Amino acid sequence: MGKNLTKRSEDYSKWYNELVVKADLAENSGVRGCMVIKPYGFAIWEKMQAALDKMFKDTGHENAYFPLFIPKSYLSKEASHVAGFAKECAVVTHYRLKNAEDGSGIIVDPDAKLEEELIVRPTSETIIWDTYRRWIQSYRDLPLLINQWANVVRWEMRTRLFLRTAEFLWQEGHTAHATKTEAIAEAEQMMHVYADFAENHMAVPVIKGVKTESERFAGALETYCIEALMQDGKALQAGTSHFLGQNFAKAFDVKFATKEGSKEYVWATSWGVSTRLMGALIMTHSDDNGLVLPPKLAPIQVVIVPIYKGLEQLDAITEKVLPLVAELKANGISVKYDQRDTHKPGFKFNEYELKGVPVRLAVGKRDLEQGTYELARRDTLEKSTVQADKVVDTILFLMDDMQKNIFNKAIVHRKEHITLVNSYDEFKEVLKKKGGFISAHWDGTVETEERIKNETKASIRCIPIDAEEEQGSCVLTGKPSTKRVLFAKAY
Amino acid sequence: MGKNLTKRSEDYSKWYNELVVKADLAENSGVRGCMVIKPYGFAIWEKMQAALDKMFKDTGHENAYFPLFIPKSYLSKEASHVAGFAKECAVVTHYRLKNAEDGSGIIVDPDAKLEEELIVRPTSETIIWDTYRRWIQSYRDLPLLINQWANVVRWEMRTRLFLRTAEFLWQEGHTAHATKTEAIAEAEQMMHVYADFAENHMAVPVIKGVKTESERFAGALETYCIEALMQDGKALQAGTSHFLGQNFAKAFDVKFATKEGSKEYVWATSWGVSTRLMGALIMTHSDDNGLVLPPKLAPIQVVIVPIYKGLEQLDAITEKVLPLVAELKANGISVKYDQRDTHKPGFKFNEYELKGVPVRLAVGKRDLEQGTYELARRDTLEKSTVQADKVVDTILFLMDDMQKNIFNKAIVHRKEHITLVNSYDEFKEVLKKKGGFISAHWDGTVETEERIKNETKASIRCIPIDAEEEQGSCVLTGKPSTKRVLFAKAY
Repeated sequence: MGKNLTKRSEDYSKWYNELVVKADLAENSGVRGCMVIKPYGFAIWEKMQAALDKMFKDTGHENAYFPLFIPKSYLSKEASHVAGFAKECAVVTHYRLKNAEDGSGIIVDPDAKLEEELIVRPTSETIIWDTYRRWIQSYRDLPLLINQWANVVRWEMRTRLFLRTAEFLWQEGHTAHATKTEAIAEAEQMMHVYADFAENHMAVPVIKGVKTESERFAGALETYCIEALMQDGKALQAGTSHFLGQNFAKAFDVKFATKEGSKEYVWATSWGVSTRLMGALIMTHSDDNGLVLPPKLAPIQVVIVPIYKGLEQLDAITEKVLPLVAELKANGISVKYDQRDTHKPGFKFNEYELKGVPVRLAVGKRDLEQGTYELARRDTLEKSTVQADKVVDTILFLMDDMQKNIFNKAIVHRKEHITLVNSYDEFKEVLKKKGGFISAHWDGTVETEERIKNETKASIRCIPIDAEEEQGSCVLTGKPSTKRVLFAKAY
Repeated sequence: MGKNLTKRSEDYSKWYNELVVKADLAENSGVRGCMVIKPYGFAIWEKMQAALDKMFKDTGHENAYFPLFIPKSYLSKEASHVAGFAKECAVVTHYRLKNAEDGSGIIVDPDAKLEEELIVRPTSETIIWDTYRRWIQSYRDLPLLINQWANVVRWEMRTRLFLRTAEFLWQEGHTAHATKTEAIAEAEQMMHVYADFAENHMAVPVIKGVKTESERFAGALETYCIEALMQDGKALQAGTSHFLGQNFAKAFDVKFATKEGSKEYVWATSWGVSTRLMGALIMTHSDDNGLVLPPKLAPIQVVIVPIYKGLEQLDAITEKVLPLVAELKANGISVKYDQRDTHKPGFKFNEYELKGVPVRLAVGKRDLEQGTYELARRDTLEKSTVQADKVVDTILFLMDDMQKNIFNKAIVHRKEHITLVNSYDEFKEVLKKKGGFISAHWDGTVETEERIKNETKASIRCIPIDAEEEQGSCVLTGKPSTKRVLFAKAY
């Protein structure tokens, strides 16, 4: 198999689109903007889900499931929320099809019109807070810490596999608290959980911060986020966690009796990550040969390819390999022995490189005689010869080493791509020539933010939570500023 | 907490509805026919999912994800398929909301009408076979063994929590094969997998069989099923597996090149189980005190309730209990120590009985002195005193024993409720007085099946796969028949 993969340096965007399809991660479907997640891509997503789900449960959350449909009147109850989502809603208006009377085919039955239209959930705050009104009466019912794994739909006009699709998979946490302090602590905690997951499972370094007012979630008082940097110098928002104040409690009349007996509105958070993380994963690590996957998320961590002439040699190799497969499995390593006789070794090497399998072992006649394996690691493409009795230990070491190595590589790349600038000319030049995050002073106004965005296409990705106090002047207006924020072009 | 649960003997249907809500499994939402699955109910579903998912993977299947929406033209391609689903389709016609110009609120934007309406998937054969056309070229691409966990929508007019809801969660397997024999073997295999799951995890005995032509899935040549019997004598279809022949391959033009180089249509199966299984689980085992859960699916397998006066006693109890909690967890038992001081022991006993926690341990001052626990098992409601050093072994034994016991109880109930009848009068009398499965001869015609159904409300649940050859005459028409089939009223 020739990979025929466009080089990143030629056309990064094309490289990404080709890689997603060729590595069997996902493809476009016949439904506008909706993707098919293929088994190999879905296996990576399942690993992400499993790790995240455990982290959510370890922090006290439970899973539940709420309806796919949201009555139009619910969505309309929180004014800024509906304003944020109205333009991209898939609307169910009818509940039946029938045969056209003129025999022209199947049509929507005009007699089966819904009294109230239903919106396919773009996010579930409204239907969930309508439910919480029934679940929350007293302080004893709080905190309520719930997560849902679900599909959501936002009718985006320009879509890209994983990064922006009309339907996507995600999790959405929705919590209810007795106090403002507790709700803010929850929203911050989930930002940290997301950062922990991104860095320690995906090996994607992220910057934690808060969004500016204009970039906040529709209905939030504060949006915490994690921002990653792709190899092409564009930023990608990888997860958000919102402090919603009492907005939804007020819109849906959710009050609780305090210990002291008074009635108060409940405080809320919501937080989510989606299949967009797949895009971040792919674009952070992969190279011109294909995917590079962190061992923790690789569906196949080790592949073993026999190199043989004739069945007798294959049998001898298989006899040697099967105990190794068993031993690796016993050590928790997912391993595939590819003895297909329909494809040549070179084809297989290419395929597993393209699919980002971390470790490839090849074994031929000479290896059999010498008691060795040829080992190739995907991150550095280095090859080495390993003694059979050392191969398990070597692989266990590599799982850890490669996880660290690709993270460190991404850290170095990001460090090189955070540039402090102090003038608007410098800002524009860095953005044009180098890209990445631009750390600059901003006067704190929506107007300045908008003007910079319109003129340069760079938006404020976040105000980092660890931003230092520093006297400065806004790169655009020269007005005073007390901390730097991060600008970037973004996915 | 008083349970105030209606008795099964008074009103079985009311008992079920109340139990589902009071045990925190699910409730109706503000969206017609759509349920909210509450955390406790969802935790049971997650355990079902995990067990099923492992069984699917162990039989060679991979997970993937296909779009929520199906273009109307796709659904229309297989004639019997669309006929089966047209009457219950949720239809998306628009993709945007806007503010009404007269200021009356949010309305559907008439300018945002879709060119082609999208159906919210009632099942995914059509969108999946449209995809398989791209994935399948040659015999090397077969078999294709794929499963999807998803939500689906069927606009049912009369809904009941878990049993029949407009939206439900399920898994749907969709496989493609080179030969008819292989596809039939797959469909049969999945029926056996479902039966294995129902009996060995849910402790629900099932009868394996095939559906009559009129009860087949829309588009199938054969529908295999597992049928369970509820305590009220009504049957419940718990899972189906369909041999689809080449119907979908022909509708979506999916051909493969054989080894010999000819082009042939692909053979298909599909198979699914849904959150309906929750209904089967609840109705098979539970009693007038609440849920009875098989240990394998219980989110909490053991609960420990301290009985104390004053903090000093509680501390002494806690000191004794915590090492036990750790030891149980180390043995893979999920355990909850409920030391809430907001509720009395009696309230807690009631609550965990209602929620079907298999084993309850209570420990008070006297137990502390004597080194014992009071143990109550949920299935038989028996109490006993257990020495502290025996308690882990006792619990491990009970997990197994209770799993078997409730299965055996259900087997006995079913055995008592399969009645052989040889005349239509007897048929009607048994149905009226005893219910359950009626094993009777049938002449094999749709007309007879329909007439019996119209007159008695009993349908043919299945033709059991192990039905013996036996000469007989149809209970209704007296025409010759070679085997008995199972009739029942059904959920």
